[in-house]
Amino acid sequence: MTYCVGLLLNAGIVLLSDTRTNAGLDNISTYRKMFVFEQPGERVVTILTAGSLSVTQTTMARLREVIDDPDSGDDHNIMKAPTMLKVADIVGSMLAQVRIDIDEKMSMSQGASASMIVAGQRRGGEMRMFLIYPEGNFIEATEDTPFLQIGEHKYGKPILDRVVTPQTSLRDAQKAVLLSMDSTLRSNLSVGMPLDLAVIERDTCRVTDRRRIEAGDEAFRAMSDAWSTALRDGFSQIDL
Amino acid sequence: MTYCVGLLLNAGIVLLSDTRTNAGLDNISTYRKMFVFEQPGERVVTILTAGSLSVTQTTMARLREVIDDPDSGDDHNIMKAPTMLKVADIVGSMLAQVRIDIDEKMSMSQGASASMIVAGQRRGGEMRMFLIYPEGNFIEATEDTPFLQIGEHKYGKPILDRVVTPQTSLRDAQKAVLLSMDSTLRSNLSVGMPLDLAVIERDTCRVTDRRRIEAGDEAFRAMSDAWSTALRDGFSQIDL
Repeated sequence: MTYCVGLLLNAGIVLLSDTRTNAGLDNISTYRKMFVFEQPGERVVTILTAGSLSVTQTTMARLREVIDDPDSGDDHNIMKAPTMLKVADIVGSMLAQVRIDIDEKMSMSQGASASMIVAGQRRGGEMRMFLIYPEGNFIEATEDTPFLQIGEHKYGKPILDRVVTPQTSLRDAQKAVLLSMDSTLRSNLSVGMPLDLAVIERDTCRVTDRRRIEAGDEAFRAMSDAWSTALRDGFSQIDL
Repeated sequence: MTYCVGLLLNAGIVLLSDTRTNAGLDNISTYRKMFVFEQPGERVVTILTAGSLSVTQTTMARLREVIDDPDSGDDHNIMKAPTMLKVADIVGSMLAQVRIDIDEKMSMSQGASASMIVAGQRRGGEMRMFLIYPEGNFIEATEDTPFLQIGEHKYGKPILDRVVTPQTSLRDAQKAVLLSMDSTLRSNLSVGMPLDLAVIERDTCRVTDRRRIEAGDEAFRAMSDAWSTALRDGFSQIDL
């Protein structure tokens, strides 16, 4: 499985993904699930992926092919689309088409599918973030629901429900997604390090901070330990 | 949906269930999901249920029918079974049979199913706790994994993973299951108040404490608020 989460805040966008994929429990690998398309200052589009690797890789490859091929026209080019809504639409259509193509090769019972988070901003436009369903339709993050999750989303939702609002700072937002991921990592083996973190400050139209957090990362472990201690301390101080 | 959790500790057993059932989002009701069979001092068997209400109610009714009918023999009587393992076996067989009976009335695509937690002790025996799968097979809580969950288990698992060990006191265990439920209630509408809580102290062979916690319960709300505050304080004190 996978866990990816994106926050759409007044100050910007914060995105985090794990990198574990598996074809059965005995075939586990590391694959990047965060993809950045960027023309700094003009446009930034970030895509997080969850689901069948054959579907997500093929979708990303086709999206990139259109960008790289000057003859393919602008209709399906996420770097030329006039709005982020159109970007979401292009990604959704591509994802749905790839899924149909792959499903044709498989029996009915297997059914490969995938979902994606698409987030970004183009110069002069608003920051926007979408969750693309396997069928290509999508929903958008709003003031009321400033975060979107794909994959193993349940373990890490309580902390987000409690601390994330549109007013959350980018610094707190990074803490929140990392702690949300930490809870998921502890409770579910199919989500694994390393992690990819990206921050897009409002109106910069570029990824302002991007980090890979490796398995032995000292800062992440210190934060995880501090959070465990805070939880246990909080727990012991509560009256029944 | 449902969330039920049971802890098997050195000091005893702690069980918690919600009461929300729904047939579609527009048909929500309150049903007890915790059932106690007790001959105080001799034997206590507690069953928590999740899944299709028609399956769980029929299973519980049949188990009770055997207990109440002197002519039905002891083979399927959970109050006469020589061991807790045999109790789990009886409940599993009954659950599987009911599921098969009901499935015959439904189309293949519908498939009603349910799972259960069975916990208790008989005089002279060990405290034991089992998770019964829809097919009637089961697993048992152990020293390494002292808690079992059914229904919407993911939201409330991180707190249990962090604080529950076999050495946890009954008092802390009640806090842990209530906070685990609190996280689930906040993140998932299909789990709802009131809650049923039961405590079985080791070797008493009876339910030593049993409470229904209603929606407006002051103590539960105070605990929930204190936990939110502790989480936010802990969150704000952590360095990124």
